[in-house]
Amino acid sequence: MDRPFYIEVIGLIAAALTTTAFLPQVYKTWKTKDVSALSLPMLLLFFIGIVLWLVYGIYMESLAMIVANSVTIVSSLLLLYFKIAYSKSITSS
Amino acid sequence: MDRPFYIEVIGLIAAALTTTAFLPQVYKTWKTKDVSALSLPMLLLFFIGIVLWLVYGIYMESLAMIVANSVTIVSSLLLLYFKIAYSKSITSS
Repeated sequence: MDRPFYIEVIGLIAAALTTTAFLPQVYKTWKTKDVSALSLPMLLLFFIGIVLWLVYGIYMESLAMIVANSVTIVSSLLLLYFKIAYSKSITSS
Repeated sequence: MDRPFYIEVIGLIAAALTTTAFLPQVYKTWKTKDVSALSLPMLLLFFIGIVLWLVYGIYMESLAMIVANSVTIVSSLLLLYFKIAYSKSITSS
């Protein structure tokens, strides 16, 4: 696409800021194992949404969207895993 | 831009899912007034990031990005307001 490079730079800065802001939640959940405040349906909807944003970003040929959503897919998969693993820990053998 | 309409539909579904997933946090913070888990620097970085995503979306002529980030700007402004207002409530007259 014939857009100026500085537009992509704006997008990449946006990507860095919003994906970075998400990481403390992942870290906190990993350390505390407290998943009571996390809703499984909400995490699932968010994960599906991020996958669709990635598909959209690929069609838009947007480097910023592809980078941001690839990182956030990993973050949200980790939160989903924590939610399922730590919720079951009471009944695990 | 000459992209197919169904691409924009994918983006709009993504927008609906990820903005909806953000609302329970806003509601919970409003009801509980518990802002201890929210970091002010993180909220500020996130807010600046969303503003830049909106600028990027406008340049990309992306309806989905403009809608999603406009809604999320309001959500994150509310969280910033709650954080500042409720953190100060101990010392307010």
